Amino acid sequence: MDSSAAAEKAAMDAMTEEERIAYKEQKKQAKDKEKAAKKAEKEARKAAAAAAAAAASAPLKPVTYRGGDEPAPTQMYGDYAVIQSTTPPGGSGRTFVRVDGLRMEVVDEEGMVWVRGRVHTLRAVGRNVFLVLRQSTSTVQAVLAEGGGTSKAFVKWASKELPVETIVDVHARLSPAEVKSCTQGNVELSVVRMYVVSRAAPTPFSLEDAARGEPTSADDALPRVGRDTRLDGRVVDLRVPPHQALLRVQSAVSGLFREFLTARGFVEIHSPKLIGGASEGGADVFTLDYFGRSACLAQSPQLYKQMAICGDMERVFEVGPVFRAENSQTHRHLCEFTGLDFEMQITEHYSEVLDCLDALFVSIFDGINARCTKELEVIGAKSPFEPFVYSPAGTNLRLEYPTAVTMLREAGVEQGDFDDLSTEVERKLGELVKAKYNTDFFILTRFPSAVRPFYTMPEAEDNRYSNSFDVFMRGEEIVSGAQRVHDVDMLAQLAEGKGINVASLKSYLDAFRYGAPPHGGAGIGLERVVMLFLAAGNVRECSMFPRDPKRLSP
Amino acid sequence: MDSSAAAEKAAMDAMTEEERIAYKEQKKQAKDKEKAAKKAEKEARKAAAAAAAAAASAPLKPVTYRGGDEPAPTQMYGDYAVIQSTTPPGGSGRTFVRVDGLRMEVVDEEGMVWVRGRVHTLRAVGRNVFLVLRQSTSTVQAVLAEGGGTSKAFVKWASKELPVETIVDVHARLSPAEVKSCTQGNVELSVVRMYVVSRAAPTPFSLEDAARGEPTSADDALPRVGRDTRLDGRVVDLRVPPHQALLRVQSAVSGLFREFLTARGFVEIHSPKLIGGASEGGADVFTLDYFGRSACLAQSPQLYKQMAICGDMERVFEVGPVFRAENSQTHRHLCEFTGLDFEMQITEHYSEVLDCLDALFVSIFDGINARCTKELEVIGAKSPFEPFVYSPAGTNLRLEYPTAVTMLREAGVEQGDFDDLSTEVERKLGELVKAKYNTDFFILTRFPSAVRPFYTMPEAEDNRYSNSFDVFMRGEEIVSGAQRVHDVDMLAQLAEGKGINVASLKSYLDAFRYGAPPHGGAGIGLERVVMLFLAAGNVRECSMFPRDPKRLSP
Repeated sequence: MDSSAAAEKAAMDAMTEEERIAYKEQKKQAKDKEKAAKKAEKEARKAAAAAAAAAASAPLKPVTYRGGDEPAPTQMYGDYAVIQSTTPPGGSGRTFVRVDGLRMEVVDEEGMVWVRGRVHTLRAVGRNVFLVLRQSTSTVQAVLAEGGGTSKAFVKWASKELPVETIVDVHARLSPAEVKSCTQGNVELSVVRMYVVSRAAPTPFSLEDAARGEPTSADDALPRVGRDTRLDGRVVDLRVPPHQALLRVQSAVSGLFREFLTARGFVEIHSPKLIGGASEGGADVFTLDYFGRSACLAQSPQLYKQMAICGDMERVFEVGPVFRAENSQTHRHLCEFTGLDFEMQITEHYSEVLDCLDALFVSIFDGINARCTKELEVIGAKSPFEPFVYSPAGTNLRLEYPTAVTMLREAGVEQGDFDDLSTEVERKLGELVKAKYNTDFFILTRFPSAVRPFYTMPEAEDNRYSNSFDVFMRGEEIVSGAQRVHDVDMLAQLAEGKGINVASLKSYLDAFRYGAPPHGGAGIGLERVVMLFLAAGNVRECSMFPRDPKRLSP
Repeated sequence: MDSSAAAEKAAMDAMTEEERIAYKEQKKQAKDKEKAAKKAEKEARKAAAAAAAAAASAPLKPVTYRGGDEPAPTQMYGDYAVIQSTTPPGGSGRTFVRVDGLRMEVVDEEGMVWVRGRVHTLRAVGRNVFLVLRQSTSTVQAVLAEGGGTSKAFVKWASKELPVETIVDVHARLSPAEVKSCTQGNVELSVVRMYVVSRAAPTPFSLEDAARGEPTSADDALPRVGRDTRLDGRVVDLRVPPHQALLRVQSAVSGLFREFLTARGFVEIHSPKLIGGASEGGADVFTLDYFGRSACLAQSPQLYKQMAICGDMERVFEVGPVFRAENSQTHRHLCEFTGLDFEMQITEHYSEVLDCLDALFVSIFDGINARCTKELEVIGAKSPFEPFVYSPAGTNLRLEYPTAVTMLREAGVEQGDFDDLSTEVERKLGELVKAKYNTDFFILTRFPSAVRPFYTMPEAEDNRYSNSFDVFMRGEEIVSGAQRVHDVDMLAQLAEGKGINVASLKSYLDAFRYGAPPHGGAGIGLERVVMLFLAAGNVRECSMFPRDPKRLSP
């Protein structure tokens, strides 16, 4: 058994029966789908390889011809040489208009515009060529028609020698038109000049196929592109509007996270990722040689943000990579993801942390809805999803662990008082909460001490429970947090109780010896938040270049 | 010769004679200084170790006594048990006032306030105890006087049993007073109740010693604390106001970087740090085992931000860790630092990137001056520095490489036309530019192609030069950037010309096959920007937990 097969077996062993069946089914479907895609891909790759080989053996194009200049006033089309900054900005006298800014008001005195875009689609009909030009997620129709200043040769060149995804500069007359298939539905370009900025080889898959959502009828047998194929060609996949939109939402979420916390006096920190010892215990850690010593990649900024608190930074946050050498191939695990972490002094009670967290998430959810309307639309068009249900800041559900256990048992789920929740049980709890409280978002508090790390503050009244919490979105955990133990004696005793070698914790424990403020905090998985808000189904869609046990490139 | 001695020898071999002398002198001074500090430190550590040992063998304190509650109305002082969230916020009826908010207007109807702070200093004089309480970088005087409700035992307890750095809750009457030695110079606290939140063991060095700047007179023989000692006890060192202030400025810089770019349509990305091949060539890269395969830690997000551009993200930035396995122990090198990277499509010329960069830095410099007045004051009080000189956005000096070479030669420096600038020559150039143009900030353009990476766009007119640039602050390089080659043929040819195995670049080259927009960008070293703006002398001061070949902890 090779290592990836072993990894899969291990992952399947860890699943429940139900998960196993779903996994197999999913795998089969994916396989079927990918078969067709792979065939097309193979052919495309062959062509691309041939083109690349031909190009590689050809000499470089001469570099004396300046990109940005027209070849001559009489030459209306052709390839630029590589643009090498010979024309200073404005030097060519051209002002380029963005595709999403194409309105009748923006034309020059001759009714013309310059546009740079990709050839999204191209169709030759008689003496006309109909193109759709794309720029990021916006599209516009362009027409090249023989006659006037447009030669037969120009039209032939455009129809035969412009592969899709090629980047072109177009000088065109803008006119009103009704074009339902483009995002710019009220205008159209009549092309006068057209120059190639950068030619595209045949792409490994078609953007159109990749943009297709799940079939909604049984007789929809149109080709789709499997996730692995898409991720292998992620550069092309990122151009697919709903896919790029997911990452634009991801970008908004980390921005909203920082804005909220910065406004509340939190300071951004950058903690080291190369550390002397494992940050969350010895398991699932990447190790490496560090100038002759052994180092680990940080599994979280946990210890460092606590040290910042002990250093009187008072309130800190970090947005940064988190590394987990976990050999699981599920829809929600990555070996490298972006952690949104914060930690704060508290005065008397860790509900101060919960209040912050509740308001933080509401600010993020509100922010996505307000700032990403275009992205939500594009994503929803491919993969419709139920709007995410939550309440105003400070009013979101906080459920205690024992209450959750009772709810689960009443619904027929076997769940021990002090046992951890399995992924399956978490999902069930999410359903029960949704049915009872009509929310996709809640905080589960008072987790059993036994299932939390040693640095979690036990409850004073009953130390079988702890001052800790998870946050759930659509029945999946996206945040873990707690009041931390700030007392060095208690910390050492709890570590020992969990069977941890206290000597190995020396530099961590030392941080608490010189007076430590009571504090608490949380760690949020950025990609999971995006996945669950948008019901995107797989965390890999929400990471630009995802890493899992099988994937280390691109 | 052990490995650290070898590393030092290698570093010294790479120095000029002048640097070597300066290095040795610096080393000697540092040694002398540290000797005294080490002695004190040793004793403090011994005491701390003894205290810790005693504490470790003692049983945990009982956890039934609730932190936040007073022991009894009659008990005016003592230790809380560990605060375990038994009193809900507001439940104790106490409203804590921040030290920097202590004004006569904030007292309750009885003229009282609650304050939580550290015992910064403590001095018993007769029947009084004078304390300075510290909260982050703010301080206030507090006086405990025998008589009234304050017993002799209370005063004795405070004078004998409150080590500095202990965190206390103080219930006190606020009165007007003139206190020059505290940041809160107009008020004073008359202590009525005082409870210990968290006791401090003896610190490895005194905050007062650590806060002392360079001696300004020959007879100043007061103790200082060496950098290594401080960094070993970074949690305590972070409490030293000028040291914490440097990191607060660092936080402001990354915030300003993002704000500027976000407002200009840039999208934040998170690129993988675990990658299949080295990102900047094979040297100085950390490698690790990734599920049976070999992986590298990214030396920059270069390839990934370019892939994002090829994926039509148009303008992207990233704030994240950058890893360099470089065995150099200089004032400006770290093995892990925070990269501020951006990359953008350009239309015709890479001066579009320079315009962005110029305005970006001005926005950062203006922002530090506007937002960090308190921090600049605190830092300047310890280590006075010349204000950083720069010009308004769009007007900062852009110098061409050949011009710089001429300036250097006129000043008697030997410098080849196409050779790289050494650190020493860079500094000299900085001086010449300061003398001629009165600026600490300039952009050097048109670097020789020979000294830049293969993906740098050569100049069209003379390919011995390139469309690249460095940015300098006070004569040190803090940014490298360029127009990148977006043409796959040219890219392969240039890589080959630099002796790089083109096959190893496959996944990088593939990104450019499907039509690639002209683009450029830059990478900025966050810690260096902070160091040079504030003339902090060593990049380690501007990293919370610095990493160099000798330092992997804390």
